[in-house]
Amino acid sequence: MANQKGDLISYRPDIKLLDATIRDGGLVNDFRFSDEFIKALYKTNVKSGIEYMEFGYKASKELFKTEDFGKWKFCDEEDIRAIVGENDTNLKLTVMADVGRCDFRKDIIPRSESVIDMIRIATYTYQMPGALEMIEYCHDLGYETSVNIMAISSSREEDVRKSLELVCNSPVDVIYIVDSYGSLYPEQMRELANQYITAAEAVGKKVGLHMHNNQQLAFANTIEGIACGASFVDATMSGMGRGAGNCFMEQMLSFLKNPNYKLTPTLKFIEKYIKEEREKGSVWGYDVPYMLTGAFNRHPRAAIAFIKEQKSDYDALYQDLLYEIS
Amino acid sequence: MANQKGDLISYRPDIKLLDATIRDGGLVNDFRFSDEFIKALYKTNVKSGIEYMEFGYKASKELFKTEDFGKWKFCDEEDIRAIVGENDTNLKLTVMADVGRCDFRKDIIPRSESVIDMIRIATYTYQMPGALEMIEYCHDLGYETSVNIMAISSSREEDVRKSLELVCNSPVDVIYIVDSYGSLYPEQMRELANQYITAAEAVGKKVGLHMHNNQQLAFANTIEGIACGASFVDATMSGMGRGAGNCFMEQMLSFLKNPNYKLTPTLKFIEKYIKEEREKGSVWGYDVPYMLTGAFNRHPRAAIAFIKEQKSDYDALYQDLLYEIS
Repeated sequence: MANQKGDLISYRPDIKLLDATIRDGGLVNDFRFSDEFIKALYKTNVKSGIEYMEFGYKASKELFKTEDFGKWKFCDEEDIRAIVGENDTNLKLTVMADVGRCDFRKDIIPRSESVIDMIRIATYTYQMPGALEMIEYCHDLGYETSVNIMAISSSREEDVRKSLELVCNSPVDVIYIVDSYGSLYPEQMRELANQYITAAEAVGKKVGLHMHNNQQLAFANTIEGIACGASFVDATMSGMGRGAGNCFMEQMLSFLKNPNYKLTPTLKFIEKYIKEEREKGSVWGYDVPYMLTGAFNRHPRAAIAFIKEQKSDYDALYQDLLYEIS
Repeated sequence: MANQKGDLISYRPDIKLLDATIRDGGLVNDFRFSDEFIKALYKTNVKSGIEYMEFGYKASKELFKTEDFGKWKFCDEEDIRAIVGENDTNLKLTVMADVGRCDFRKDIIPRSESVIDMIRIATYTYQMPGALEMIEYCHDLGYETSVNIMAISSSREEDVRKSLELVCNSPVDVIYIVDSYGSLYPEQMRELANQYITAAEAVGKKVGLHMHNNQQLAFANTIEGIACGASFVDATMSGMGRGAGNCFMEQMLSFLKNPNYKLTPTLKFIEKYIKEEREKGSVWGYDVPYMLTGAFNRHPRAAIAFIKEQKSDYDALYQDLLYEIS
């Protein structure tokens, strides 16, 4: 690869790992994690040397009923503090806020009063003005910010280009490449990464990566993206996340050679808590239906429903996707 | 990628798919497949438009007891004919022969008397003279031949270079890049592919790919390898193969845009027969122990034993690998 950043033996101190297990994994179990799970995850992230941990969403309590979800859908300040106290560690804390689904002026307090360090703003290209407003707002409250522009694989290229231009002119710190449908191939990933990095570096911003594993490419696309120069990496414990799940944290800790990273605490967490989570009935990870929606560049909802209903007629789903029924 | 061959929309008629389900999958269940499974697989490959199907090994009956394995460890001509008759189809048939573990002068009959089309010779770099002898022998009997040079990720680069030079001067048709330990990253894959392809093309030979999924990179490395110009691709149904398994056939059929390929028969095979095979107790696929042996560039035997014994103390395996105990 021309201009590859980093190599397989040394390490790049600019690369930061972000554990998104609660937030993306919460989409699997409606954010119903035990406090023990969350406390153990927090301690694991601290001990493993991971730089950022995402607690969940700051979702609007006007739009979503609190009784329908576990508390990490809303991430009240006191709930996070019950886990982390004053968070007297090197681990930075994040929450995600969806444009249009967060009462940010009410629910996001100044950083000086919060244990949260970074607000991550998730947006579609057609919501950019709303995203920019939230970026400004959170930045002015003192937070680090990222913007996660979703579903770019099914957006018009011109819309992605324009969105990128807009966020480059905002005070956002990190711009994420998000493969919402797990449909990107490494060659597309490299092209996008080069586009994002060229734009971001020119204005002193970082590029992040949030991949899905529909085609078993989450890890591959992530390491290709960092070789292009991306430096924020989302990963989850054993890939726990919506549908086919995400890039595996244990793989990233193993792949990156940063001596601050420790694999042992993460392996011990997986052995106990991920096993228990699966036994509770949470299902995620690569499977034929996700491969199909990924290959067709579609939202995974048809695959998620297929698996939830314990169907196995893969060809019926394939025919539906071929003829645009799903 | 400089000089990429092919793109994501058109198709390359030079690419051939080889179904290695029985041969690599047989390492999971000691080649104990039902005749129904094998017949259904054969029909599936024909209907799916797959170009080659591997039946198993031509293993020495002096070295291995026939009662310890199913018949596809030995691939007697009459056993293959019981499935395929005269094989009056476009699907070519292959078997694999390991250097030093095949009585090739006794067990391999002239192609004119066999339904087999290609003999695939598997070798380590330190067995090259034996491999060359077998290539000559099988070529002279009229077969297409491939050579699968194994464990190159842990071989001296000079030994790989020299082996490549030797097979380029042999009558072999296809030279395989084999990632025995599932330890190669895409950037290493591209480098190896360029090395192999440059050498092979200069003497009119093809390059093949045989990947393992220890780090969830089998599909990624395969599609990167073909973008570099490789044209023979080994894949198996749902990745069935030793340890973490192989590149998934359903993903390759979905990825390649060859209009001869049909995904439906393969999906129907998976729905019924791969499900049954798993229910019988055959275990393969990505798991933490395979990730560890892959990342450490080791033979997966420690991981296979770990999983067979249903252990879950991942950190103990990690410590063993770190300090070279396993």
